[in-house]
Amino acid sequence: MSVITIERKVLEKNDQIASRIRQLFLERGIFVLNFVSSPGAGKTSILERTFQELKGSVGMAVIEGDVQTDLDAQRIARYGVPVVQIVTLGGCHLEANLIQDALKSLDLNGVEMLFIENVGNLVCPASYDLGEATKVVILSTTEGDDKPLKYPAMFLNSSVLIVNKIDLVPYVNCDLNVLKNNALKINPALKIFEVSCFTGAGIPEWCRWLKKKDASDQ
Amino acid sequence: MSVITIERKVLEKNDQIASRIRQLFLERGIFVLNFVSSPGAGKTSILERTFQELKGSVGMAVIEGDVQTDLDAQRIARYGVPVVQIVTLGGCHLEANLIQDALKSLDLNGVEMLFIENVGNLVCPASYDLGEATKVVILSTTEGDDKPLKYPAMFLNSSVLIVNKIDLVPYVNCDLNVLKNNALKINPALKIFEVSCFTGAGIPEWCRWLKKKDASDQ
Repeated sequence: MSVITIERKVLEKNDQIASRIRQLFLERGIFVLNFVSSPGAGKTSILERTFQELKGSVGMAVIEGDVQTDLDAQRIARYGVPVVQIVTLGGCHLEANLIQDALKSLDLNGVEMLFIENVGNLVCPASYDLGEATKVVILSTTEGDDKPLKYPAMFLNSSVLIVNKIDLVPYVNCDLNVLKNNALKINPALKIFEVSCFTGAGIPEWCRWLKKKDASDQ
Repeated sequence: MSVITIERKVLEKNDQIASRIRQLFLERGIFVLNFVSSPGAGKTSILERTFQELKGSVGMAVIEGDVQTDLDAQRIARYGVPVVQIVTLGGCHLEANLIQDALKSLDLNGVEMLFIENVGNLVCPASYDLGEATKVVILSTTEGDDKPLKYPAMFLNSSVLIVNKIDLVPYVNCDLNVLKNNALKINPALKIFEVSCFTGAGIPEWCRWLKKKDASDQ
């Protein structure tokens, strides 16, 4: 029972910091998205595609979260987008205090959209508010259409679902309609995009929504 | 700091229970494998293929771990293999006390091989000993060849790596040699199998090793 108490305290403290960060983002008119998914679902690839589409028209920045290595930050940096890497050294999710620390190393002038790429984990990051406006869960078709039912918290706590790797549907055991229905059973309000970072399909629709959302939230 | 202390205590208690369970398995000559991977990498599919190959020649049983639903246990039960489902209700990994509880519902008479299918999570289950003889990490090619470097603990703590979905290599951004080299950089002692649950490729080799290992461990 003591463990549960401590965990509640951790979550409460996290939520307090997250509220302060959210306030800062609101004051500065920065639209913040928290990207969550299993390892390899395509968080970084979607960011790369998004930069290609929006670079020059929207001021963007990234906070990268990884258990180990700065491989993803290196990928992001190639696009000239400011990026701060958080290495959790085994930690299975990002917490609000890590975002607060990362912000000290990030110049927010001109930033209209901040992407937080969480640790690849479809369970733990669901519980931690990072002060974002929107949690975006990414699910790749190769993971199978049953995943929303098996990992419901992440789909319940997100407002957007990006289904990635739709180019692989012919080769894998995944029915896109079943996948979407399963996701909507858990969270009927989910906004769903279907994309392929390999072919670029669906990326313009996602980016159009992103730009519109950014404008309306400021 | 108190959180770290508590976590250490949790791990210590877990390890004590795991040692007791391991002793029980050794006494009964049961070879126990702890399957770990991201969601959708193919843990259940590899079990299904393994049952097809070994059914009738080896006494097998399964403990299924899931955050929610008994979908995987339903898949296993179709093969006539005894299965107990643990639903963690949000918990991100299995712990030894859950295995201890599950064993109360499992008749071990005639069981030579016990597969524990952990929660789909490439981070947290790395830290929890379940009394297994062997931790088997499954990585699908669709997750990308950089994952061993980004999630090193799981590859360091496993003795076997099954690379699944090799039939998809032509369609994804994954170099099998780079993947294997990255895994061996983290853990040079890893025994590696390359399989496709879709085509069945590599399954006989994996099952031959399994039978040989089972016989030598008893």
